[in-house]
Amino acid sequence: MPEHVFRGILVPVLTPFRPDLSPDADAFVTHCRWLLNKGADGLAVFGTTSEANSIGLEERMALLENLIDSGISPSVLMPGTGTSALTDTVRLTEHAVEHGCAGVLMLPPFYYKAIDDDGLFASYAEVIQRVGSDALQIYLYHIPPISQIHLSLKLIGRLLSTYEDTIVGLKDSSGDWSNTETILREYPTLATFCGSEVFLLETLQRGGAGSITATANVNVAAIRKTFERWQEGDANKLQKEINSVRKAFEEYPLIPSLKAVTAKFYGSSDWCRVHPPLRDLGITDTEELIKSLTNLGFKM
Amino acid sequence: MPEHVFRGILVPVLTPFRPDLSPDADAFVTHCRWLLNKGADGLAVFGTTSEANSIGLEERMALLENLIDSGISPSVLMPGTGTSALTDTVRLTEHAVEHGCAGVLMLPPFYYKAIDDDGLFASYAEVIQRVGSDALQIYLYHIPPISQIHLSLKLIGRLLSTYEDTIVGLKDSSGDWSNTETILREYPTLATFCGSEVFLLETLQRGGAGSITATANVNVAAIRKTFERWQEGDANKLQKEINSVRKAFEEYPLIPSLKAVTAKFYGSSDWCRVHPPLRDLGITDTEELIKSLTNLGFKM
Repeated sequence: MPEHVFRGILVPVLTPFRPDLSPDADAFVTHCRWLLNKGADGLAVFGTTSEANSIGLEERMALLENLIDSGISPSVLMPGTGTSALTDTVRLTEHAVEHGCAGVLMLPPFYYKAIDDDGLFASYAEVIQRVGSDALQIYLYHIPPISQIHLSLKLIGRLLSTYEDTIVGLKDSSGDWSNTETILREYPTLATFCGSEVFLLETLQRGGAGSITATANVNVAAIRKTFERWQEGDANKLQKEINSVRKAFEEYPLIPSLKAVTAKFYGSSDWCRVHPPLRDLGITDTEELIKSLTNLGFKM
Repeated sequence: MPEHVFRGILVPVLTPFRPDLSPDADAFVTHCRWLLNKGADGLAVFGTTSEANSIGLEERMALLENLIDSGISPSVLMPGTGTSALTDTVRLTEHAVEHGCAGVLMLPPFYYKAIDDDGLFASYAEVIQRVGSDALQIYLYHIPPISQIHLSLKLIGRLLSTYEDTIVGLKDSSGDWSNTETILREYPTLATFCGSEVFLLETLQRGGAGSITATANVNVAAIRKTFERWQEGDANKLQKEINSVRKAFEEYPLIPSLKAVTAKFYGSSDWCRVHPPLRDLGITDTEELIKSLTNLGFKM
Protein backbone atom coordinates (compact mmCIF):
# COMPACT_ATOMS: atom_id res chain seq x y z
CA MET A 1 0.00 0.00 0.00
CA PRO A 2 1.45 3.40 -0.94
CA GLU A 3 2.44 5.69 1.92
CA HIS A 4 0.92 8.85 0.59
CA VAL A 5 -1.98 9.14 -1.80
CA PHE A 6 -3.32 12.53 -2.82
CA ARG A 7 -6.76 13.58 -1.69
CA GLY A 8 -8.63 16.86 -2.04
CA ILE A 9 -8.29 19.61 -4.61
CA LEU A 10 -5.32 19.64 -6.94
CA VAL A 11 -4.59 22.38 -9.43
CA PRO A 12 -3.33 21.76 -12.97
CA VAL A 13 -1.31 24.95 -12.76
CA LEU A 14 -1.40 27.43 -15.65
CA THR A 15 2.05 28.10 -17.10
CA PRO A 16 2.94 31.79 -17.55
CA PHE A 17 4.98 32.75 -20.61
CA ARG A 18 7.36 35.63 -21.30
CA PRO A 19 7.02 37.66 -24.54
CA ASP A 20 9.34 35.13 -26.27
CA LEU A 21 6.97 32.34 -25.11
CA SER A 22 9.53 30.83 -22.75
CA PRO A 23 8.03 29.81 -19.40
CA ASP A 24 8.26 32.51 -16.74
CA ALA A 25 9.68 30.50 -13.83
CA ASP A 26 9.25 33.27 -11.26
CA ALA A 27 5.61 34.02 -12.06
CA PHE A 28 5.01 30.26 -11.99
CA VAL A 29 6.44 29.94 -8.46
CA THR A 30 4.37 32.94 -7.32
CA HIS A 31 1.17 31.37 -8.63
CA CYS A 32 2.00 27.95 -7.15
CA ARG A 33 2.61 29.53 -3.73
CA TRP A 34 -0.64 31.47 -3.95
CA LEU A 35 -2.59 28.30 -4.81
CA LEU A 36 -1.11 26.41 -1.86
CA ASN A 37 -1.81 29.34 0.46
CA LYS A 38 -5.41 29.36 -0.72
CA GLY A 39 -5.81 25.71 0.21
CA ALA A 40 -4.75 23.56 -2.75
CA ASP A 41 -3.91 20.04 -1.58
CA GLY A 42 -1.50 19.54 -4.42
CA LEU A 43 -0.24 20.91 -7.72
CA ALA A 44 -0.74 18.88 -10.86
CA VAL A 45 1.80 20.93 -12.79
CA PHE A 46 2.27 20.17 -16.50
CA GLY A 47 -1.24 19.05 -17.29
CA THR A 48 -3.46 19.97 -20.21
CA THR A 49 -4.36 23.32 -18.61
CA SER A 50 -0.63 23.97 -18.17
CA GLU A 51 -0.06 23.69 -21.94
CA ALA A 52 2.63 21.18 -21.00
CA ASN A 53 2.58 19.40 -24.33
CA SER A 54 3.17 22.72 -26.07
CA ILE A 55 6.45 23.37 -24.28
CA GLY A 56 9.72 21.50 -24.58
CA LEU A 57 11.00 18.67 -22.43
CA GLU A 58 13.95 20.69 -21.17
CA GLU A 59 11.67 23.60 -20.29
CA ARG A 60 9.38 21.32 -18.26
CA MET A 61 12.25 19.84 -16.30
CA ALA A 62 13.84 23.24 -15.64
CA LEU A 63 10.52 24.62 -14.36
CA LEU A 64 10.07 21.68 -11.99
CA GLU A 65 13.59 22.00 -10.60
CA ASN A 66 13.15 25.73 -10.08
CA LEU A 67 9.85 25.15 -8.30
CA ILE A 68 11.43 22.75 -5.83
CA ASP A 69 14.53 24.95 -5.40
CA SER A 70 12.17 27.80 -4.56
CA GLY A 71 10.88 25.87 -1.59
CA ILE A 72 7.72 24.20 -2.92
CA SER A 73 7.78 20.74 -1.39
CA PRO A 74 7.82 17.88 -3.92
CA SER A 75 5.40 16.12 -1.58
CA VAL A 76 2.61 18.30 -3.01
CA LEU A 77 3.62 17.85 -6.64
CA MET A 78 2.00 15.59 -9.23
CA PRO A 79 3.64 16.63 -12.53
CA GLY A 80 2.27 15.43 -15.85
CA THR A 81 4.88 13.21 -17.52
CA GLY A 82 3.08 11.41 -20.35
CA THR A 83 4.14 12.27 -23.91
CA SER A 84 3.67 10.51 -27.22
CA ALA A 85 7.21 9.08 -27.04
CA LEU A 86 8.29 6.29 -24.70
CA THR A 87 11.80 7.54 -23.95
CA ASP A 88 10.58 11.10 -23.36
CA THR A 89 7.88 9.85 -20.97
CA VAL A 90 10.45 7.75 -19.13
CA ARG A 91 12.82 10.71 -18.95
CA LEU A 92 10.21 13.06 -17.49
CA THR A 93 8.92 10.40 -15.09
CA GLU A 94 12.40 9.49 -13.81
CA HIS A 95 13.12 13.17 -13.38
CA ALA A 96 9.95 13.66 -11.30
CA VAL A 97 10.72 10.62 -9.13
CA GLU A 98 14.35 11.64 -8.63
CA HIS A 99 13.14 15.01 -7.43
CA GLY A 100 10.85 13.42 -4.88
CA CYS A 101 7.49 14.24 -6.46
CA ALA A 102 4.72 12.44 -4.61
CA GLY A 103 3.07 11.29 -7.83
CA VAL A 104 2.89 11.76 -11.58
CA LEU A 105 -0.19 12.26 -13.77
CA MET A 106 0.41 10.12 -16.83
CA LEU A 107 -1.23 10.53 -20.23
CA PRO A 108 -1.18 7.51 -22.49
CA PRO A 109 0.86 8.00 -25.71
CA PHE A 110 -1.46 10.18 -27.77
CA TYR A 111 -0.20 10.28 -31.36
CA TYR A 112 -1.65 7.08 -32.82
CA LYS A 113 -5.41 6.59 -32.60
CA ALA A 114 -7.64 3.50 -32.38
CA ILE A 115 -5.12 1.87 -30.06
CA ASP A 116 -6.26 -1.26 -28.24
CA ASP A 117 -5.94 -2.14 -24.56
CA ASP A 118 -2.92 -4.39 -25.10
CA GLY A 119 -1.01 -1.53 -26.74
CA LEU A 120 -1.91 0.90 -23.97
CA PHE A 121 -1.09 -1.65 -21.29
CA ALA A 122 2.30 -2.27 -22.91
CA SER A 123 2.94 1.49 -22.98
CA TYR A 124 2.32 1.98 -19.27
CA ALA A 125 4.08 -1.29 -18.38
CA GLU A 126 7.19 -0.32 -20.33
CA VAL A 127 7.40 3.05 -18.55
CA ILE A 128 6.91 1.46 -15.11
CA GLN A 129 9.56 -1.18 -15.76
CA ARG A 130 12.05 1.31 -17.13
CA VAL A 131 11.65 3.76 -14.28
CA GLY A 132 11.86 0.75 -11.94
CA SER A 133 11.35 2.68 -8.73
CA ASP A 134 9.24 1.86 -5.67
CA ALA A 135 8.80 5.60 -5.25
CA LEU A 136 6.88 5.89 -8.53
CA GLN A 137 3.17 6.57 -7.99
CA ILE A 138 1.11 6.94 -11.12
CA TYR A 139 -2.23 8.66 -11.51
CA LEU A 140 -3.71 7.64 -14.86
CA TYR A 141 -4.82 10.59 -16.93
CA HIS A 142 -8.01 9.92 -18.87
CA ILE A 143 -8.89 12.83 -21.14
CA PRO A 144 -10.37 11.38 -24.34
CA PRO A 145 -11.78 14.68 -25.67
CA ILE A 146 -8.18 15.83 -26.14
CA SER A 147 -5.94 12.77 -26.15
CA GLN A 148 -8.52 10.87 -28.24
CA ILE A 149 -7.43 7.79 -26.29
CA HIS A 150 -9.91 5.92 -24.14
CA LEU A 151 -8.69 4.13 -21.02
CA SER A 152 -11.21 1.32 -20.73
CA LEU A 153 -12.45 -0.13 -17.45
CA LYS A 154 -10.76 -3.39 -18.33
CA LEU A 155 -7.42 -1.67 -18.97
CA ILE A 156 -7.62 0.23 -15.68
CA GLY A 157 -8.34 -3.03 -13.86
CA ARG A 158 -5.48 -4.83 -15.55
CA LEU A 159 -3.00 -2.06 -14.74
CA LEU A 160 -4.25 -1.92 -11.17
CA SER A 161 -3.93 -5.65 -10.56
CA THR A 162 -0.51 -5.88 -12.23
CA TYR A 163 1.02 -2.79 -10.64
CA GLU A 164 -0.96 -2.35 -7.44
CA ASP A 165 1.80 -0.42 -5.66
CA THR A 166 2.41 1.93 -8.57
CA ILE A 167 -1.00 2.71 -10.07
CA VAL A 168 -2.59 4.62 -7.22
CA GLY A 169 -5.06 6.97 -8.82
CA LEU A 170 -6.83 8.36 -11.85
CA LYS A 171 -8.08 11.68 -13.12
CA ASP A 172 -11.20 11.31 -15.23
CA SER A 173 -11.59 14.22 -17.63
CA SER A 174 -13.91 12.32 -19.92
CA GLY A 175 -16.64 14.80 -19.05
CA ASP A 176 -18.90 11.75 -18.76
CA TRP A 177 -20.11 11.34 -15.19
CA SER A 178 -21.33 7.80 -15.81
CA ASN A 179 -17.78 6.82 -16.70
CA THR A 180 -16.39 8.36 -13.50
CA GLU A 181 -19.16 6.71 -11.49
CA THR A 182 -18.37 3.29 -12.94
CA ILE A 183 -14.67 3.66 -12.16
CA LEU A 184 -15.51 4.68 -8.58
CA ARG A 185 -17.73 1.62 -8.18
CA GLU A 186 -15.44 -0.90 -9.85
CA TYR A 187 -12.14 0.28 -8.39
CA PRO A 188 -12.80 1.66 -4.89
CA THR A 189 -9.13 1.45 -3.85
CA LEU A 190 -8.06 3.78 -6.67
CA ALA A 191 -7.78 7.47 -5.73
CA THR A 192 -10.16 8.79 -8.39
CA PHE A 193 -10.39 12.50 -9.12
CA CYS A 194 -13.03 14.11 -11.28
CA GLY A 195 -11.59 16.40 -13.95
CA SER A 196 -14.16 19.10 -13.29
CA GLU A 197 -15.38 20.38 -9.93
CA VAL A 198 -18.98 20.19 -11.13
CA PHE A 199 -18.79 16.49 -10.17
CA LEU A 200 -17.06 17.11 -6.83
CA LEU A 201 -19.84 16.20 -4.38
CA GLU A 202 -20.95 13.21 -6.42
CA THR A 203 -17.34 12.01 -6.61
CA LEU A 204 -16.85 12.30 -2.86
CA GLN A 205 -20.22 10.69 -2.10
CA ARG A 206 -19.11 7.67 -4.07
CA GLY A 207 -15.76 7.38 -2.29
CA GLY A 208 -13.65 9.42 -4.72
CA ALA A 209 -10.53 11.34 -3.73
CA GLY A 210 -11.43 14.83 -4.96
CA SER A 211 -10.94 16.89 -8.06
CA ILE A 212 -8.02 17.97 -10.24
CA THR A 213 -9.59 20.87 -12.04
CA ALA A 214 -8.49 23.71 -14.29
CA THR A 215 -10.82 26.27 -12.69
CA ALA A 216 -9.02 25.78 -9.37
CA ASN A 217 -6.38 28.12 -10.84
CA VAL A 218 -8.76 30.99 -10.11
CA ASN A 219 -11.28 29.52 -7.66
CA VAL A 220 -9.32 27.16 -5.44
CA ALA A 221 -10.53 28.52 -2.08
CA ALA A 222 -14.22 27.99 -2.87
CA ILE A 223 -13.63 24.57 -4.42
CA ARG A 224 -11.49 23.55 -1.45
CA LYS A 225 -14.23 24.71 0.93
CA THR A 226 -16.78 22.57 -0.93
CA PHE A 227 -14.45 19.61 -0.56
CA GLU A 228 -13.97 20.29 3.15
CA ARG A 229 -17.69 20.63 3.85
CA TRP A 230 -19.00 17.91 1.57
CA GLN A 231 -20.87 16.20 4.42
CA GLU A 232 -22.24 19.44 5.89
CA GLY A 233 -25.61 21.09 5.36
CA ASP A 234 -24.30 23.81 3.05
CA ALA A 235 -22.54 21.40 0.68
CA ASN A 236 -25.12 21.64 -2.09
CA LYS A 237 -25.16 25.42 -1.90
CA LEU A 238 -21.36 25.54 -2.14
CA GLN A 239 -21.41 23.10 -5.05
CA LYS A 240 -23.91 25.32 -6.87
CA GLU A 241 -21.71 28.36 -6.36
CA ILE A 242 -18.59 26.75 -7.77
CA ASN A 243 -20.66 25.35 -10.66
CA SER A 244 -21.81 28.84 -11.63
CA VAL A 245 -18.21 30.07 -11.80
CA ARG A 246 -17.20 27.07 -13.88
CA LYS A 247 -20.13 27.72 -16.20
CA ALA A 248 -19.03 31.32 -16.78
CA PHE A 249 -15.63 30.08 -17.98
CA GLU A 250 -17.10 27.41 -20.18
CA GLU A 251 -18.65 30.05 -22.42
CA TYR A 252 -15.08 30.73 -23.65
CA PRO A 253 -12.01 28.68 -24.53
CA LEU A 254 -10.99 27.42 -21.08
CA ILE A 255 -7.22 27.90 -20.95
CA PRO A 256 -7.13 31.41 -22.51
CA SER A 257 -10.02 32.55 -20.30
CA LEU A 258 -8.38 31.24 -17.13
CA LYS A 259 -5.21 33.05 -18.13
CA ALA A 260 -7.10 36.27 -18.84
CA VAL A 261 -8.62 36.25 -15.35
CA THR A 262 -5.29 35.34 -13.77
CA ALA A 263 -3.70 38.26 -15.65
CA LYS A 264 -6.30 40.59 -14.19
CA PHE A 265 -5.65 39.22 -10.69
CA TYR A 266 -1.87 39.69 -10.87
CA GLY A 267 -2.22 42.96 -12.76
CA SER A 268 0.07 41.62 -15.48
CA SER A 269 -1.04 41.22 -19.07
CA ASP A 270 1.88 38.81 -19.53
CA TRP A 271 -0.33 36.18 -17.95
CA CYS A 272 -2.74 36.34 -20.93
CA ARG A 273 -0.17 34.81 -23.22
CA VAL A 274 -0.76 31.26 -24.50
CA HIS A 275 1.38 29.06 -26.68
CA PRO A 276 0.27 28.41 -30.23
CA PRO A 277 -1.86 26.60 -31.38
CA LEU A 278 -4.02 28.17 -28.65
CA ARG A 279 -4.86 31.86 -28.87
CA ASP A 280 -5.23 34.64 -26.32
CA LEU A 281 -8.80 35.38 -25.29
CA GLY A 282 -8.86 38.93 -26.64
CA ILE A 283 -10.16 42.12 -25.07
CA THR A 284 -13.89 41.84 -25.82
CA ASP A 285 -14.28 38.31 -24.52
CA THR A 286 -12.14 39.13 -21.49
CA GLU A 287 -14.34 42.08 -20.59
CA GLU A 288 -17.50 40.02 -21.02
CA LEU A 289 -16.10 37.19 -18.90
CA ILE A 290 -14.98 39.55 -16.13
CA LYS A 291 -18.43 41.11 -16.18
CA SER A 292 -20.15 37.72 -15.83
CA LEU A 293 -17.84 36.81 -12.98
CA THR A 294 -18.37 40.14 -11.24
CA ASN A 295 -22.14 39.60 -11.48
CA LEU A 296 -21.63 36.28 -9.70
CA GLY A 297 -19.78 38.05 -6.89
CA PHE A 298 -16.63 36.15 -7.88
CA LYS A 299 -13.32 37.07 -6.30
CA MET A 300 -10.06 35.24 -6.92
CA MET B 1 11.55 30.16 -56.00
CA PRO B 2 13.25 27.32 -54.15
CA GLU B 3 16.19 25.66 -55.86
CA HIS B 4 15.18 22.10 -55.26
CA VAL B 5 11.71 20.78 -54.72
CA PHE B 6 11.12 17.08 -54.27
CA ARG B 7 9.29 15.15 -56.94
CA GLY B 8 8.57 11.46 -57.36
CA ILE B 9 8.29 8.72 -54.78
CA LEU B 10 9.43 9.36 -51.23
CA VAL B 11 9.50 6.75 -48.51
CA PRO B 12 8.44 7.39 -44.91
CA VAL B 13 11.11 4.98 -43.74
CA LEU B 14 10.25 2.33 -41.14
CA THR B 15 12.41 2.60 -38.03
CA PRO B 16 13.96 -0.70 -36.87
CA PHE B 17 14.25 -1.30 -33.12
CA ARG B 18 16.62 -3.39 -31.01
CA PRO B 19 15.24 -5.70 -28.29
CA ASP B 20 15.43 -2.77 -25.81
CA LEU B 21 13.33 -0.70 -28.29
CA SER B 22 16.17 1.70 -29.06
CA PRO B 23 16.46 2.51 -32.77
CA ASP B 24 18.84 0.24 -34.67
CA ALA B 25 20.91 2.81 -36.53
CA ASP B 26 22.76 0.29 -38.70
CA ALA B 27 19.65 -1.56 -39.87
CA PHE B 28 18.11 1.85 -40.58
CA VAL B 29 21.01 2.87 -42.84
CA THR B 30 20.86 -0.48 -44.62
CA HIS B 31 17.16 -0.05 -45.35
CA CYS B 32 17.60 3.58 -46.46
CA ARG B 33 20.36 2.56 -48.89
CA TRP B 34 18.23 -0.26 -50.26
CA LEU B 35 15.28 2.09 -50.84
CA LEU B 36 17.46 4.59 -52.70
CA ASN B 37 19.00 1.81 -54.78
CA LYS B 38 15.51 0.62 -55.67
CA GLY B 39 14.61 4.05 -57.01
CA ALA B 40 13.27 6.16 -54.14
CA ASP B 41 13.50 9.87 -54.97
CA GLY B 42 13.78 10.79 -51.33
CA LEU B 43 13.43 9.57 -47.79
CA ALA B 44 10.77 11.09 -45.57
CA VAL B 45 12.38 9.71 -42.42
CA PHE B 46 10.56 10.23 -39.09
CA GLY B 47 7.03 10.21 -40.38
CA THR B 48 3.98 8.43 -39.01
CA THR B 49 5.11 5.13 -40.55
CA SER B 50 8.50 5.64 -38.90
CA GLU B 51 6.87 5.74 -35.44
CA ALA B 52 8.78 9.00 -35.03
CA ASN B 53 6.44 10.39 -32.40
CA SER B 54 6.96 7.26 -30.32
CA ILE B 55 10.72 7.75 -30.05
CA GLY B 56 12.62 10.48 -28.22
CA LEU B 57 13.95 13.75 -29.60
CA GLU B 58 17.55 12.78 -28.93
CA GLU B 59 17.06 9.42 -30.63
CA ARG B 60 15.64 11.10 -33.75
CA MET B 61 18.52 13.53 -34.01
CA ALA B 62 21.13 10.82 -33.43
CA LEU B 63 19.57 8.64 -36.15
CA LEU B 64 19.61 11.51 -38.64
CA GLU B 65 23.24 12.36 -37.93
CA ASN B 66 24.25 8.73 -38.28
CA LEU B 67 22.40 8.47 -41.58
CA ILE B 68 24.27 11.43 -43.03
CA ASP B 69 27.60 10.30 -41.56
CA SER B 70 27.01 6.96 -43.27
CA GLY B 71 26.99 8.66 -46.64
CA ILE B 72 23.27 9.21 -47.33
CA SER B 73 23.11 12.67 -48.89
CA PRO B 74 20.95 15.17 -46.96
CA SER B 75 19.76 16.35 -50.38
CA VAL B 76 17.44 13.31 -50.48
CA LEU B 77 16.18 13.72 -46.90
CA MET B 78 12.85 15.17 -45.78
CA PRO B 79 12.71 14.38 -42.04
CA GLY B 80 9.51 14.83 -40.07
CA THR B 81 10.06 17.54 -37.47
CA GLY B 82 6.59 18.48 -36.19
CA THR B 83 5.81 17.67 -32.56
CA SER B 84 3.16 18.92 -30.15
CA ALA B 85 5.65 21.34 -28.55
CA LEU B 86 6.92 24.52 -30.19
CA THR B 87 10.48 24.42 -28.86
CA ASP B 88 10.87 20.74 -29.71
CA THR B 89 9.62 21.33 -33.25
CA VAL B 90 12.02 24.26 -33.62
CA ARG B 91 14.87 22.15 -32.27
CA LEU B 92 14.26 19.27 -34.69
CA THR B 93 13.73 21.65 -37.62
CA GLU B 94 16.91 23.63 -36.93
CA HIS B 95 18.79 20.38 -36.59
CA ALA B 96 17.51 19.17 -39.98
CA VAL B 97 18.37 22.48 -41.66
CA GLU B 98 21.83 22.63 -40.09
CA HIS B 99 22.50 19.15 -41.44
CA GLY B 100 21.55 20.21 -44.94
CA CYS B 101 18.28 18.31 -45.33
CA ALA B 102 16.53 19.39 -48.52
CA GLY B 103 13.17 19.71 -46.77
CA VAL B 104 11.18 18.87 -43.67
CA LEU B 105 7.73 17.30 -43.39
CA MET B 106 5.95 19.24 -40.68
CA LEU B 107 2.97 18.07 -38.66
CA PRO B 108 0.92 20.76 -36.97
CA PRO B 109 0.99 20.61 -33.14
CA PHE B 110 -1.32 17.67 -32.44
CA TYR B 111 -2.19 17.65 -28.74
CA TYR B 112 -5.05 20.14 -28.56
CA LYS B 113 -8.07 19.52 -30.77
CA ALA B 114 -10.65 21.81 -32.41
CA ILE B 115 -7.88 24.31 -33.17
CA ASP B 116 -8.76 27.11 -35.58
CA ASP B 117 -6.81 28.37 -38.59
CA ASP B 118 -5.35 31.34 -36.72
CA GLY B 119 -3.87 29.06 -34.08
CA LEU B 120 -2.39 26.71 -36.68
CA PHE B 121 -1.07 29.61 -38.75
CA ALA B 122 0.58 31.05 -35.64
CA SER B 123 2.17 27.66 -34.90
CA TYR B 124 3.79 27.35 -38.32
CA ALA B 125 4.70 31.05 -38.41
CA GLU B 126 6.43 30.87 -35.05
CA VAL B 127 8.53 27.88 -36.14
CA ILE B 128 9.48 29.55 -39.43
CA GLN B 129 10.47 32.78 -37.72
CA ARG B 130 12.46 31.05 -35.02
CA VAL B 131 14.37 28.83 -37.43
CA GLY B 132 14.89 31.95 -39.55
CA SER B 133 16.75 30.23 -42.37
CA ASP B 134 16.46 30.67 -46.13
CA ALA B 135 17.44 27.02 -46.39
CA LEU B 136 14.25 25.89 -44.62
CA GLN B 137 11.79 24.20 -46.97
CA ILE B 138 8.60 22.98 -45.40
CA TYR B 139 6.23 20.31 -46.70
CA LEU B 140 2.99 20.57 -44.74
CA TYR B 141 1.87 17.25 -43.34
CA HIS B 142 -1.90 16.76 -43.44
CA ILE B 143 -2.94 13.54 -41.74
CA PRO B 144 -6.23 14.22 -39.94
CA PRO B 145 -7.09 10.54 -39.29
CA ILE B 146 -4.14 10.45 -36.89
CA SER B 147 -3.26 14.03 -35.95
CA GLN B 148 -6.98 14.90 -35.72
CA ILE B 149 -5.98 18.32 -37.05
CA HIS B 150 -7.37 19.55 -40.35
CA LEU B 151 -5.27 21.89 -42.49
CA SER B 152 -7.95 23.85 -44.31
CA LEU B 153 -7.63 25.15 -47.86
CA LYS B 154 -7.71 28.67 -46.50
CA LEU B 155 -4.89 27.97 -44.05
CA ILE B 156 -2.74 26.39 -46.75
CA GLY B 157 -3.31 29.44 -48.97
CA ARG B 158 -2.46 31.84 -46.19
CA LEU B 159 0.76 30.00 -45.32
CA LEU B 160 1.69 29.82 -48.98
CA SER B 161 1.17 33.51 -49.65
CA THR B 162 2.95 34.59 -46.45
CA TYR B 163 5.92 32.24 -46.70
CA GLU B 164 6.16 31.51 -50.41
CA ASP B 165 9.87 30.65 -50.29
CA THR B 166 9.50 28.34 -47.30
CA ILE B 167 6.23 26.46 -47.77
CA VAL B 168 7.04 24.43 -50.85
CA GLY B 169 4.91 21.34 -50.62
CA LEU B 170 2.31 19.22 -48.88
CA LYS B 171 1.61 15.59 -48.16
CA ASP B 172 -2.09 14.83 -48.08
CA SER B 173 -2.81 11.73 -46.01
CA SER B 174 -6.43 12.65 -45.47
CA GLY B 175 -7.39 9.57 -47.44
CA ASP B 176 -9.96 11.82 -49.14
CA TRP B 177 -9.16 12.16 -52.83
CA SER B 178 -11.50 15.13 -53.27
CA ASN B 179 -9.43 17.03 -50.70
CA THR B 180 -6.18 16.25 -52.54
CA GLU B 181 -7.79 17.17 -55.84
CA THR B 182 -8.94 20.54 -54.50
CA ILE B 183 -5.47 21.34 -53.16
CA LEU B 184 -3.95 20.43 -56.53
CA ARG B 185 -6.40 22.71 -58.33
CA GLU B 186 -6.21 25.65 -55.92
CA TYR B 187 -2.46 25.63 -55.31
CA PRO B 188 -0.74 24.42 -58.47
CA THR B 189 2.68 25.80 -57.43
CA LEU B 190 2.72 23.66 -54.29
CA ALA B 191 4.52 20.31 -54.61
CA THR B 192 1.63 18.12 -53.53
CA PHE B 193 2.14 14.47 -52.70
CA CYS B 194 -0.63 11.96 -52.13
CA GLY B 195 -0.22 9.98 -48.93
CA SER B 196 -1.13 6.71 -50.61
CA GLU B 197 0.07 5.42 -53.97
CA VAL B 198 -3.50 4.43 -54.89
CA PHE B 199 -3.92 8.09 -55.91
CA LEU B 200 -0.60 8.30 -57.76
CA LEU B 201 -1.79 8.57 -61.38
CA GLU B 202 -4.62 10.92 -60.50
CA THR B 203 -2.22 13.09 -58.53
CA LEU B 204 0.26 13.29 -61.42
CA GLN B 205 -2.50 13.90 -64.00
CA ARG B 206 -3.55 16.95 -61.98
CA GLY B 207 -0.03 18.35 -61.75
CA GLY B 208 0.98 16.81 -58.41
CA ALA B 209 4.54 15.99 -57.43
CA GLY B 210 4.21 12.32 -56.56
CA SER B 211 3.57 10.22 -53.50
CA ILE B 212 5.05 9.86 -50.04
CA THR B 213 3.70 6.48 -49.10
CA ALA B 214 4.21 3.90 -46.36
CA THR B 215 3.96 0.92 -48.72
CA ALA B 216 7.01 2.21 -50.60
CA ASN B 217 9.01 0.63 -47.78
CA VAL B 218 8.35 -2.74 -49.40
CA ASN B 219 7.23 -1.87 -52.94
CA VAL B 220 9.26 1.16 -53.97
CA ALA B 221 10.47 -0.20 -57.32
CA ALA B 222 6.95 -0.86 -58.67
CA ILE B 223 5.60 2.44 -57.33
CA ARG B 224 8.58 4.29 -58.80
CA LYS B 225 8.00 2.58 -62.14
CA THR B 226 4.35 3.71 -62.13
CA PHE B 227 5.53 7.26 -61.46
CA GLU B 228 8.10 7.06 -64.26
CA ARG B 229 5.60 5.71 -66.80
CA TRP B 230 2.55 7.71 -65.81
CA GLN B 231 2.08 9.01 -69.34
CA GLU B 232 2.71 5.67 -71.03
CA GLY B 233 0.23 3.08 -72.23
CA ASP B 234 0.84 0.67 -69.36
CA ALA B 235 0.28 3.26 -66.63
CA ASN B 236 -3.17 2.04 -65.64
CA LYS B 237 -1.99 -1.56 -65.50
CA LEU B 238 0.95 -0.57 -63.28
CA GLN B 239 -1.35 1.48 -61.06
CA LYS B 240 -3.65 -1.52 -60.65
CA GLU B 241 -0.73 -3.73 -59.67
CA ILE B 242 0.53 -1.39 -56.95
CA ASN B 243 -3.06 -0.93 -55.74
CA SER B 244 -3.47 -4.65 -55.21
CA VAL B 245 -0.33 -4.80 -53.07
CA ARG B 246 -1.51 -1.82 -51.03
CA LYS B 247 -4.87 -3.49 -50.57
CA ALA B 248 -3.26 -6.67 -49.20
CA PHE B 249 -1.54 -4.60 -46.49
CA GLU B 250 -4.66 -2.68 -45.62
CA GLU B 251 -6.30 -5.84 -44.32
CA TYR B 252 -3.90 -5.54 -41.36
CA PRO B 253 -2.53 -2.74 -39.15
CA LEU B 254 -0.26 -0.96 -41.63
CA ILE B 255 2.95 -0.30 -39.69
CA PRO B 256 3.22 -3.74 -38.03
CA SER B 257 2.43 -5.48 -41.33
CA LEU B 258 5.04 -3.48 -43.26
CA LYS B 259 7.56 -4.35 -40.56
CA ALA B 260 6.62 -8.04 -40.70
CA VAL B 261 7.25 -8.17 -44.45
CA THR B 262 10.46 -6.17 -44.11
CA ALA B 263 11.60 -8.65 -41.42
CA LYS B 264 10.99 -11.50 -43.82
CA PHE B 265 12.94 -9.70 -46.55
CA TYR B 266 16.00 -9.05 -44.37
CA GLY B 267 15.67 -12.44 -42.66
CA SER B 268 15.68 -10.74 -39.28
CA SER B 269 12.76 -10.98 -36.86
CA ASP B 270 14.15 -7.88 -35.13
CA TRP B 271 12.45 -5.87 -37.86
CA CYS B 272 9.00 -7.01 -36.62
CA ARG B 273 9.40 -4.99 -33.44
CA VAL B 274 7.18 -1.92 -33.00
CA HIS B 275 7.08 0.63 -30.20
CA PRO B 276 4.12 0.63 -27.85
CA PRO B 277 1.31 1.61 -28.17
CA LEU B 278 1.49 -0.28 -31.50
CA ARG B 279 1.77 -4.06 -31.44
CA ASP B 280 3.67 -6.59 -33.54
CA LEU B 281 1.59 -8.26 -36.23
CA GLY B 282 1.85 -11.77 -34.81
CA ILE B 283 2.59 -15.04 -36.54
CA THR B 284 -0.85 -15.95 -37.92
CA ASP B 285 -1.51 -12.59 -39.54
CA THR B 286 2.05 -12.47 -40.88
CA GLU B 287 1.63 -15.86 -42.54
CA GLU B 288 -1.71 -14.86 -44.05
CA LEU B 289 -0.30 -11.58 -45.33
CA ILE B 290 2.75 -13.24 -46.86
CA LYS B 291 0.43 -15.75 -48.53
CA SER B 292 -1.75 -13.00 -50.03
CA LEU B 293 1.33 -11.19 -51.28
CA THR B 294 2.81 -14.37 -52.76
CA ASN B 295 -0.47 -14.99 -54.61
CA LEU B 296 -0.10 -11.53 -56.12
CA GLY B 297 3.37 -12.42 -57.34
CA PHE B 298 4.78 -9.76 -55.01
CA LYS B 299 8.52 -9.53 -54.52
CA MET B 300 10.26 -6.90 -52.44
